Amino acid sequence: MDEPWLLNLGATLGREMPITRSMQLETVSWTDQQLAMKMPLEPNRNHQDSAFAGSLSTLCTVVGWGTLFMLLQQKGLTGNVVIRRGTIRYLLRSSEIVATGLPIDSDELGFFFELLQSKGKSKLDIAVEIADEQGPYVVFKGSYVVHG
Amino acid sequence: MDEPWLLNLGATLGREMPITRSMQLETVSWTDQQLAMKMPLEPNRNHQDSAFAGSLSTLCTVVGWGTLFMLLQQKGLTGNVVIRRGTIRYLLRSSEIVATGLPIDSDELGFFFELLQSKGKSKLDIAVEIADEQGPYVVFKGSYVVHG
Repeated sequence: MDEPWLLNLGATLGREMPITRSMQLETVSWTDQQLAMKMPLEPNRNHQDSAFAGSLSTLCTVVGWGTLFMLLQQKGLTGNVVIRRGTIRYLLRSSEIVATGLPIDSDELGFFFELLQSKGKSKLDIAVEIADEQGPYVVFKGSYVVHG
Repeated sequence: MDEPWLLNLGATLGREMPITRSMQLETVSWTDQQLAMKMPLEPNRNHQDSAFAGSLSTLCTVVGWGTLFMLLQQKGLTGNVVIRRGTIRYLLRSSEIVATGLPIDSDELGFFFELLQSKGKSKLDIAVEIADEQGPYVVFKGSYVVHG
């Protein structure tokens, strides 16, 4: 059941946010409400032939946005998702660029949907990590607002 | 004297960070140690036909990086600039997308160069704003590390 939703997310990003096509962003998986997306190094490289900070930040922003897109689809809801705030830390660089949403607290998620359905508007924080075999090297946290 | 440095910055970005070409990022001006850069909406639009958060974040990241690139050039220094941390707030969206570095405290700047020249390594925080006629709508702060 996740596959068509993931395909829908990928198609939506490519159509509505064309720079993600230039970056060659791709969905990887949606498991236990955790979205993973990846991009190749070449179009996203920097002066050190490692990953460009702007692309890393965009990838994380999109994984947060896509997590809400998937959560809403899963509940059969529609809503307009907008990011309000983001913080990011870059620890080191790597050529493995897969960003994964971190687990969302189930109480927070319940409250998020409760508010969305009662008020038509809600907010959720999504944490995203980019890790390689040595551990996470980019840590992102975004606050997203949803209007139902 | 600023013009060749700005041209050099633009050429460096296009060559070393190819995604900035897809975004059509351009340098605008370098005045009083404040760098301004812009991008058109079309390649950087989102599902609401306003500016894509990922592109806004990348533009700000690059203006911070470019500010250090310009500061080093101006002093005749070379150094490798890396962002360590960033925070961004998105207030509202606009089709006018020019990001400008905010003034840098001259004591901090003096200390930055002192440390770079004595230790071969230094750090500077750069604040960047994207504003339109109604005021700033994206506010970014980045911490950059320089190895001389």
